[in-house]
Amino acid sequence: MKALQLTGNKENPLAFVELPMPEPKAGEVLVQLKASALNRRDYWIREGMYPGIRPNVTLGSDGCGTIVKLGENVSESLLNQEVVINPNQNWGENPIVQSDEYTMLGMPSNGTFAEYLAVPVDRVHPKPAHLTSEEAAALPLGALTAYRAVFTHAEVKEGDSVLISGVGGGVAQFAFLFAQTIGAKVFVTSGSEEKSQKVLDTGAAGAVNYKSEDWDKQLKKISGGFDAVIDSAGGDGFSKFVRIMNPAGRIVFYGATRGVPPKLDVFTAFFRQVRFQGSTMGNDIEFEKMLQFIGDHKLKPFVDSVRPFDEILDAFEIMAKNTQFGKLVVRF
Amino acid sequence: MKALQLTGNKENPLAFVELPMPEPKAGEVLVQLKASALNRRDYWIREGMYPGIRPNVTLGSDGCGTIVKLGENVSESLLNQEVVINPNQNWGENPIVQSDEYTMLGMPSNGTFAEYLAVPVDRVHPKPAHLTSEEAAALPLGALTAYRAVFTHAEVKEGDSVLISGVGGGVAQFAFLFAQTIGAKVFVTSGSEEKSQKVLDTGAAGAVNYKSEDWDKQLKKISGGFDAVIDSAGGDGFSKFVRIMNPAGRIVFYGATRGVPPKLDVFTAFFRQVRFQGSTMGNDIEFEKMLQFIGDHKLKPFVDSVRPFDEILDAFEIMAKNTQFGKLVVRF
Repeated sequence: MKALQLTGNKENPLAFVELPMPEPKAGEVLVQLKASALNRRDYWIREGMYPGIRPNVTLGSDGCGTIVKLGENVSESLLNQEVVINPNQNWGENPIVQSDEYTMLGMPSNGTFAEYLAVPVDRVHPKPAHLTSEEAAALPLGALTAYRAVFTHAEVKEGDSVLISGVGGGVAQFAFLFAQTIGAKVFVTSGSEEKSQKVLDTGAAGAVNYKSEDWDKQLKKISGGFDAVIDSAGGDGFSKFVRIMNPAGRIVFYGATRGVPPKLDVFTAFFRQVRFQGSTMGNDIEFEKMLQFIGDHKLKPFVDSVRPFDEILDAFEIMAKNTQFGKLVVRF
Repeated sequence: MKALQLTGNKENPLAFVELPMPEPKAGEVLVQLKASALNRRDYWIREGMYPGIRPNVTLGSDGCGTIVKLGENVSESLLNQEVVINPNQNWGENPIVQSDEYTMLGMPSNGTFAEYLAVPVDRVHPKPAHLTSEEAAALPLGALTAYRAVFTHAEVKEGDSVLISGVGGGVAQFAFLFAQTIGAKVFVTSGSEEKSQKVLDTGAAGAVNYKSEDWDKQLKKISGGFDAVIDSAGGDGFSKFVRIMNPAGRIVFYGATRGVPPKLDVFTAFFRQVRFQGSTMGNDIEFEKMLQFIGDHKLKPFVDSVRPFDEILDAFEIMAKNTQFGKLVVRF
């Protein structure tokens, strides 16, 4: 079977390889992938900028496919079911934070950029019925990360004023969908007027270009202040959020593409009882709740494009340029 | 009656004045103070370094005294009761954060550095029976701030590994007492070996001098890592806490005497799902719970010294030098 692996060769970091068909062990199922999707994580791994990477591993955390073979001790009823794969491995006992043994599908263990993948039976969940295979493949890591950030950590509820920064990002777009669905007033930032317009067209309460000198003042003006901010940029902007928060506001951050905040106005933060909450991925219960939420509300992920698996390297190039709006999906 | 007021004169910012006896209005009680205590807040006000200060206001947030006169619509049974005064005014409806109308006794309204004070009847609570008037007067603002920081925000529980930074401070000492009483393993920092030793003598699990170059590494070594940190220093040290936190650790900050943190390792913070929580004072329910907790566990505050009200300016001088260990109390 065909798979996309990290080579360890800097000039050609990714290559298609031919691998033996995986054999499901006891308690496992063999999934024939119908679609996979890229995450920023895959891109960082390609760039060699992710902790603990090693060559000859199949990348990919997101996938949707059909169960075509069962290991021992797996119910026959699962055969031929179409499923979404939970990329978490060994989250551990504490729902609040992952264990030291936690890893994710697609590095260091083989992932979803392959025609077949064997996973433990508790990693698969029925595909939401209202979604195509390509749409369902767009969910796992991004929607999980957004679900935890928006609901578990930012505790977003109906009527809240919420800011999603960098709404071009995959997690950010799920965060936007989730916050909006629950009835929050959702504002966004983007460096692209085109992306802003697309989100405004789907109901955002307002959008500001973060390249503007006074983006923070503009946001304050149009929103009145935020109960929650969901951010993955960090950097200088992070410090500015503090002054546009409502009292007891929550700033949840799941990345820092612009580096560490150069300073933090802790004076305003303590007087207003503002919270900064680090967040990453989500636990297995959150994964199930996320699928349930998407099913209950018949949410559709933003999908930029779907291309054949053979052309997945093109998807990596689009991610490098950051011109996509929505998930980059490949089909098998 | 005699009171200590802010003069508005920079050279002599504080002065004793003779004021008419306050008259309790309907729903109020007149308290004859038996003891008051200083907070760092009083010192900042004297220095002109507090927002919204104005002259001709009696300072003081902490006080314990006897109800000697009742306004209309107040139960006769309260007469002659000894009470602790809750310094909160208009916290508001939201338990999570104070309202815009929130103020505190002792600026902008007259406070407890006076022989008599009239306050609404819902501001007074019976003095914990196991405490002297002087000990009870040491509680209000410091113990309230610590209670919220330790329990509401840091969610400290039995078995947690907790760091209280700058344990010479009034709030820090209450935080130490509370965390220890609940069964946490409590580590402290101080710039004074003498203060560290005193806290070690009362059961701290370990102490490190924050003037050491490698205080953070020392703390990590003796504690293994922290589930919660209670801090009011901010500055460079704040950034270092991130790397000595256990996963899902909570850093609660209620001040920043060393200024804003110059940079913050948000990468470690999001991967470990660390929380930074601003905190200040506490709500009225927390005030009652704090008194209950102190009563249930028969806790005694650290009291540095008790002096006559006439000598309160000496207490301000001690606070300026920061040589005290425990609250600076005055008696009437």
